[in-house]
Amino acid sequence: GFATLDFQRRERCGFPEVVLAEGKTADWVVQVVRRMREAGQDCLATRVSGEQFQHLAAEFPQAEVDHLARTFWLPTPGDRPPLVGDVLVVTAGTGDLPVAYEAINTARVMGANAELIADVGVAGLHRILRKRDRLAAADVVIVCAGMDGALPSVVGGLVDCPVIAVPTSIGYGAAFGGVAALLTMLNSCSAGVVTVNIDAGFKAGYAAALMVRKIAKS
Amino acid sequence: GFATLDFQRRERCGFPEVVLAEGKTADWVVQVVRRMREAGQDCLATRVSGEQFQHLAAEFPQAEVDHLARTFWLPTPGDRPPLVGDVLVVTAGTGDLPVAYEAINTARVMGANAELIADVGVAGLHRILRKRDRLAAADVVIVCAGMDGALPSVVGGLVDCPVIAVPTSIGYGAAFGGVAALLTMLNSCSAGVVTVNIDAGFKAGYAAALMVRKIAKS
Amino acid sequence: GFATLDFQRRERCGFPEVVLAEGKTADWVVQVVRRMREAGQDCLATRVSGEQFQHLAAEFPQAEVDHLARTFWLPTPGDRPPLVGDVLVVTAGTGDLPVAYEAINTARVMGANAELIADVGVAGLHRILRKRDRLAAADVVIVCAGMDGALPSVVGGLVDCPVIAVPTSIGYGAAFGGVAALLTMLNSCSAGVVTVNIDAGFKAGYAAALMVRKIAKS
Amino acid sequence: GFATLDFQRRERCGFPEVVLAEGKTADWVVQVVRRMREAGQDCLATRVSGEQFQHLAAEFPQAEVDHLARTFWLPTPGDRPPLVGDVLVVTAGTGDLPVAYEAINTARVMGANAELIADVGVAGLHRILRKRDRLAAADVVIVCAGMDGALPSVVGGLVDCPVIAVPTSIGYGAAFGGVAALLTMLNSCSAGVVTVNIDAGFKAGYAAALMVRKIAKS
Amino acid sequence: GFATLDFQRRERCGFPEVVLAEGKTADWVVQVVRRMREAGQDCLATRVSGEQFQHLAAEFPQAEVDHLARTFWLPTPGDRPPLVGDVLVVTAGTGDLPVAYEAINTARVMGANAELIADVGVAGLHRILRKRDRLAAADVVIVCAGMDGALPSVVGGLVDCPVIAVPTSIGYGAAFGGVAALLTMLNSCSAGVVTVNIDAGFKAGYAAALMVRKIAKS
Amino acid sequence: GFATLDFQRRERCGFPEVVLAEGKTADWVVQVVRRMREAGQDCLATRVSGEQFQHLAAEFPQAEVDHLARTFWLPTPGDRPPLVGDVLVVTAGTGDLPVAYEAINTARVMGANAELIADVGVAGLHRILRKRDRLAAADVVIVCAGMDGALPSVVGGLVDCPVIAVPTSIGYGAAFGGVAALLTMLNSCSAGVVTVNIDAGFKAGYAAALMVRKIAKS
Amino acid sequence: GFATLDFQRRERCGFPEVVLAEGKTADWVVQVVRRMREAGQDCLATRVSGEQFQHLAAEFPQAEVDHLARTFWLPTPGDRPPLVGDVLVVTAGTGDLPVAYEAINTARVMGANAELIADVGVAGLHRILRKRDRLAAADVVIVCAGMDGALPSVVGGLVDCPVIAVPTSIGYGAAFGGVAALLTMLNSCSAGVVTVNIDAGFKAGYAAALMVRKIAKS
Amino acid sequence: GFATLDFQRRERCGFPEVVLAEGKTADWVVQVVRRMREAGQDCLATRVSGEQFQHLAAEFPQAEVDHLARTFWLPTPGDRPPLVGDVLVVTAGTGDLPVAYEAINTARVMGANAELIADVGVAGLHRILRKRDRLAAADVVIVCAGMDGALPSVVGGLVDCPVIAVPTSIGYGAAFGGVAALLTMLNSCSAGVVTVNIDAGFKAGYAAALMVRKIAKS
Ligand SMILES: Nc1ncnc2c1ncn2[C@@H]1O[C@H](COP(=O)(O)O)[C@@H](O)[C@H]1O
Ligand SMILES: Nc1ncnc2c1ncn2[C@@H]1O[C@H](COP(=O)(O)O)[C@@H](O)[C@H]1O
Ligand SMILES: Nc1ncnc2c1ncn2[C@@H]1O[C@H](COP(=O)(O)O)[C@@H](O)[C@H]1O
Ligand SMILES: Nc1ncnc2c1ncn2[C@@H]1O[C@H](COP(=O)(O)O)[C@@H](O)[C@H]1O
Ligand SMILES: [Mg+2]
Ligand SMILES: [Mg+2]
Ligand SMILES: [Mg+2]
Ligand SMILES: [Mg+2]
Ligand SMILES: [Mg+2]
Ligand SMILES: [Mg+2]
Ligand SMILES: [Mg+2]
Ligand SMILES: [Mg+2]
Repeated sequence: GFATLDFQRRERCGFPEVVLAEGKTADWVVQVVRRMREAGQDCLATRVSGEQFQHLAAEFPQAEVDHLARTFWLPTPGDRPPLVGDVLVVTAGTGDLPVAYEAINTARVMGANAELIADVGVAGLHRILRKRDRLAAADVVIVCAGMDGALPSVVGGLVDCPVIAVPTSIGYGAAFGGVAALLTMLNSCSAGVVTVNIDAGFKAGYAAALMVRKIAKS
Repeated sequence: GFATLDFQRRERCGFPEVVLAEGKTADWVVQVVRRMREAGQDCLATRVSGEQFQHLAAEFPQAEVDHLARTFWLPTPGDRPPLVGDVLVVTAGTGDLPVAYEAINTARVMGANAELIADVGVAGLHRILRKRDRLAAADVVIVCAGMDGALPSVVGGLVDCPVIAVPTSIGYGAAFGGVAALLTMLNSCSAGVVTVNIDAGFKAGYAAALMVRKIAKS
Repeated sequence: GFATLDFQRRERCGFPEVVLAEGKTADWVVQVVRRMREAGQDCLATRVSGEQFQHLAAEFPQAEVDHLARTFWLPTPGDRPPLVGDVLVVTAGTGDLPVAYEAINTARVMGANAELIADVGVAGLHRILRKRDRLAAADVVIVCAGMDGALPSVVGGLVDCPVIAVPTSIGYGAAFGGVAALLTMLNSCSAGVVTVNIDAGFKAGYAAALMVRKIAKS
Repeated sequence: GFATLDFQRRERCGFPEVVLAEGKTADWVVQVVRRMREAGQDCLATRVSGEQFQHLAAEFPQAEVDHLARTFWLPTPGDRPPLVGDVLVVTAGTGDLPVAYEAINTARVMGANAELIADVGVAGLHRILRKRDRLAAADVVIVCAGMDGALPSVVGGLVDCPVIAVPTSIGYGAAFGGVAALLTMLNSCSAGVVTVNIDAGFKAGYAAALMVRKIAKS
Repeated sequence: GFATLDFQRRERCGFPEVVLAEGKTADWVVQVVRRMREAGQDCLATRVSGEQFQHLAAEFPQAEVDHLARTFWLPTPGDRPPLVGDVLVVTAGTGDLPVAYEAINTARVMGANAELIADVGVAGLHRILRKRDRLAAADVVIVCAGMDGALPSVVGGLVDCPVIAVPTSIGYGAAFGGVAALLTMLNSCSAGVVTVNIDAGFKAGYAAALMVRKIAKS
Repeated sequence: GFATLDFQRRERCGFPEVVLAEGKTADWVVQVVRRMREAGQDCLATRVSGEQFQHLAAEFPQAEVDHLARTFWLPTPGDRPPLVGDVLVVTAGTGDLPVAYEAINTARVMGANAELIADVGVAGLHRILRKRDRLAAADVVIVCAGMDGALPSVVGGLVDCPVIAVPTSIGYGAAFGGVAALLTMLNSCSAGVVTVNIDAGFKAGYAAALMVRKIAKS
Repeated sequence: GFATLDFQRRERCGFPEVVLAEGKTADWVVQVVRRMREAGQDCLATRVSGEQFQHLAAEFPQAEVDHLARTFWLPTPGDRPPLVGDVLVVTAGTGDLPVAYEAINTARVMGANAELIADVGVAGLHRILRKRDRLAAADVVIVCAGMDGALPSVVGGLVDCPVIAVPTSIGYGAAFGGVAALLTMLNSCSAGVVTVNIDAGFKAGYAAALMVRKIAKS
Repeated sequence: GFATLDFQRRERCGFPEVVLAEGKTADWVVQVVRRMREAGQDCLATRVSGEQFQHLAAEFPQAEVDHLARTFWLPTPGDRPPLVGDVLVVTAGTGDLPVAYEAINTARVMGANAELIADVGVAGLHRILRKRDRLAAADVVIVCAGMDGALPSVVGGLVDCPVIAVPTSIGYGAAFGGVAALLTMLNSCSAGVVTVNIDAGFKAGYAAALMVRKIAKS
């Protein structure tokens, strides 16, 4: 077959395999989702294209889809446990929102509370300073920023929890599709900042959910 | 003055400012440590050179120094609370050890338990597989690897906690001083992997300690 | 003329010149195929575009075409010798399949047996471990992987034959269109891993076929 | 000759040619300075090495030298007009000081007032916020930062004058000798930020002095 | 909300927040402009796409739009103070004009006089030399150039005011979308040259306006 | 105006200014050509797009256009001197032909004889070796190659005249749009090889024509 | 411990773990070799430094060392089977010899015949053409080249066996420490060329030995 | 042997093989020179190190050596034909002189007249403009420049002969060891500019000599 689904991932890693739709034909995506559902596993897909959404909608009209975040979510039926922890997702600008929502959607389907603070970049510092108490309360903060990618360094200096920095491809010229922001974040002068791939809201949300679930369990 | 020490960092971020010795004259480093001590703050310095160690030893013979990890630690006198949590530090090869020890030393002085598993790279997979139970017990795993940087992806597929990947500058040619490993880690196919700068054992240990402290507090 | 076909390549290298369709007008491709056929040589073309396929189909309806792999194959009439050797083609994900099929098609038209194992990336390690016996039996293994490109290092540690690693352009952000996977593979900690260009399934299949033909001849 | 000195630069550009010592033999540097003096022109040299300083000291003991900033200054005799304007030079860390002093020395010998605020990086935001009034009074602010290079974006959001950002080579790993900071600054989300080369304190001081002299003249 | 507008920027930085249209949905852009207008603030938007222009035109037909420069300008009603200073914008070629107009439009809406000299690249040196007197009169010169980006170095050697260099993405092959010109400018052998991001006419115009306003105020 | 045409270039450099159509609106291109013609100068334009060709055809139907090479040529009326010298243009593959024709067209309109040898890349060495006598007769050889860019090194070892190497963007993956071939050529082990920009057939043809004209004059 | 030796590698991969000396203290290297010997395994170490050689010589005077190739070889006592197959190692220049010898030494200790042809780069093509019969007889050819890295493409067009290309760091400027040659090789227009890391003679020799051993076994 | 000298190069290419000393042991260099002399061929070596010079001096005291240019020249005895043509070598700064002398020495030993104009960079344009007549008389101009690499574009606009641009590694920060100048030159807006590798004065001198010899022969 074209796919060898990892049905044990839920046991090993605490969440079923997530489908990366990009690079797959619409038909492949539909078949993979079908098999996940048949195996009784929750199915999240990310980076879904318009054409893939159409094929998915035809077969899975009940799924939750977010066209901005490009996520598809088809949970197994039944009640879900209450959300745990406090993941705060912050963006530097409005253009970072799709990535932020990918993070939020991921964290939530994994069982974590996730909340958004949008467009509080460092050029207008009072915006983030106004949120200091909210930041201080979080278990983990995800910061999405493109261009100079400076916001995670500022946030990292205000909190005592880990900061997951997500460089976005917002920007032009020497932003190099997010490389400038990525390097900024890797070199953050705030020590508690870790980084994920460019536009990888999914990974930030995933790692944040793992963290708060560890807290909740303890 | 040549330095504006951030004495409030302890309050805001849970740990005093850490001194990055690299790029400072030996004299500057000594003065900064002196001021930290006078302010009654624990003082950790990283990336300390041989020459800087000599100057520091003359004035602070009681400090704990690790020449392999290049760390200097001068705690305030008095009892310290017991270490909390479970940070597991894993290396792919022997050459990654200095970075691993920087992570361990940092995590420990911040109050976290930290343990080492060395030289279990993916070319001999049984080595890491043998440690599955130990991995499964950790709160967070730090994986240090140079060359292909493949180990964090493998570890990430075995655990349900976050993995902090640290690319090291071990390797030659197209390893580009750790860039190859860095890119591998940023593109990890395991979703729970976050990344720090090349050779940044300090940052991995710092972020890991913040995580387990959140767990301990809850 | 616009082309100086190398009709002696079959004698020197064991296989006729292969047409790289990319960068040629559809008309050029058709003319080159025509000349190859007139010279009584097998004709393989790779990286064929949709428009080129249409022009080719009009004149060579009997050819074998694979739209996913983007290959075109017009053998000379007559029986072909039985396939030899054992080339195993492995992919990390589903999105790597087009590259894998380009490798398989190339190896087969050159007279080698080639078989596929799909979607057994390192995030779910049991998938590749389950195939250990099959891997151990191969003469050469081709591993296609994008994103972190970690699979060849793992496979290389399980076999005593050469591994040809093919980085694919699957991935986003700091995957840089396959560069991350390419660097991983060049820096593989498994010693028997050699690498070809990004998405170069053709080259991997070609080199693998040369290897197994040497074995068969001996 | 090995040098074609540009004695008209003072007329055209408002300051004599400055000697870039790097890449010249000590002997060449001495001869160039000698010719500048003979031509009755002020002579500034930058990026002077230890060996070059020794040769220069032998012949020009009266010159002002700064070993940290690596600058050499041999003014023509006579009174100089009072310094004008208000150039404020800010550094993120202590390690950025050599670059900052190169900027300050350059601005001063060109006739501008220049003042330093050191080590007020964004990880401890109160340090720069405490200086808001001082910043608001400046005609132009020069910000020197390595690692993440985030400080110019923050300063740019606090002032209504131009900010000249100087990336420094402080940092390691993916700092790439100042490239990370350079890209951050080029992509600054604060609109009034312009950038110079890595470690180019000289250029920042030069451009700043040109600016405040225009103000003073008006 | 999706946006946290920085209505205090006018007070702090002397000009209201400017909208970067790129990366925003047309709907977001319209809403942001509406809120700016409701807050009684001048509204400049840059890098506006064709689709965004259409949405904006429907609601703000009175705005000044420049499709070449991709700028949108909706001032608050009432008289504006006379323009001040002398910003000279120079281009190396005709293809650099969109970037030059973005700089001019920005400088003018911020209250500065801005004038254009087009297509005077260094391959025909008499063209820029003919403008020496005009150049000498300027308070600040903005030079836009793609390909080799050599013009700012030449202009910098002719004037005693700062030169803001803007690399443009004009060119092909090893121009790398403006990177070649950017590096040229950062390494300018003329000391008074500062640089902004590739195609960042906006930033050059903005910084130039801040400079001449400081002059005008003094 | 949007253009400052350099009508003295013919006197200084031996050929009128050539129009780079890329980056210009179709209208600008038409106007520039019109002005060149009005000034009684030959007009060559390169990198002309389909849309620009249409606008040009409407006004200058008599011009010679080459859609493959993307060149436009509108000579002044009257006889032209006979072509001089011997420029040999060689390509490694068929896909390099557009670049080769740009070189040939440029050399010819500048008065040089230019001849083509196509598709003689190093994988079938007899093809170029067969042309040794023809190569030995040339005044200058232009070699266009993409992918590995190896042909200029081979040609350079066979001739006693300069070789101008033109990297082309033919290739995929780690060809990086011609960068691989460019680096090969810059590092050629044959000493007489000089290089121009990726796909810059124009520049190769131009420099070659300057060379043979110097020979012809002597 | 600082090392987890992989004593099963011999069973799985056909050869014991090889020690990468670079990045290890001399003491670590000595201890690892000691443990390998105690385990009754052949011990090869590569990239050994002068200091490491000294420590090794003190304890293992009987080992075979090659200071040019930087290899150390300590076989288990007893007879070894006769060498098999035919690995031909070719260099473009003299400077590539250390890498070539690393390949030869590796292939030989793994049981393969390996022979050298030195300094036959493409600038003097008759040198490699003279070796056509020898090349045609080989089972696999390893080609080591720096600078333009063109030789593997030429060799690949002359043989019907796989070619393993090894880029070397010989060259300067835009050779970028072997990157230019690496890219040339990855983009080779000869289809049977596979590539290893820069200066990785070890890997080429290792993979070549695996190939010829497969042939010998069949 | 470690070297396969190409004694036919003189016949094919008009000049004997030149020895690249870099990357060779001192002993190898001495042996190669000895063999060249024994074969009755002129021997030029470039990029000779201090240690290599010492070994060479012991055996070939009569050779002409240039420690600045790092060249070694051992001609065969007997009269040499008078120098031909007019190669003009121009440098932007003083630091470019070693590269310029490598070019001059190479051109001269190949039989060409070569003359130097030093330190006439574009920041003081009158310096190069003053040389316009001298430039106009040359057959080919070599321009060596580091930092911004702008001078070849200016020279190219003043002459009707080819310009060979040599980027030098002079500069710091984003000069990237000559890459900035290299890119500038490849993208020169002057059409007759061709480029060689960073610091490759040798190649520029070699190609220039080939050109003027063609002129002389005609
Ligand atoms: N020269 C070399 N280049 C690349 N890999 C090597 C080299 N020498 C040894 N190795 C590999 O490096 C691994 C050893 O890494 P370590 O655990 O750090 O000793 C082994 O698995 C070898 O296969
Ligand atoms: N090894 C390290 N890597 C990265 N950042 C560090 C390291 N050690 C200390 N730091 C950070 O560097 C900052 C100190 O910079 P400085 O003001 O130059 O001493 C502190 O805020 C630390 O958080
Ligand atoms: N400075 C130099 N830069 C580039 N190539 C050179 C240089 N000096 C000599 N060469 C070339 O390098 C080749 C010699 O390489 P090798 O066989 O390693 O001595 C000769 O063919 C020369 O053409
Ligand atoms: N630290 C520096 N960074 C950049 N450019 C400099 C520096 N110091 C001097 N310069 C410039 O370098 C040029 C001198 O180069 P040169 O002719 O090689 O001495 C002068 O025109 C100066 O404007
Ligand atoms: Mg905003
Ligand atoms: Mg190991
Ligand atoms: Mg999968
Ligand atoms: Mg500090
Ligand atoms: Mg023009
Ligand atoms: Mg061909
Ligand atoms: Mg040689
Ligand atoms: Mg100079």
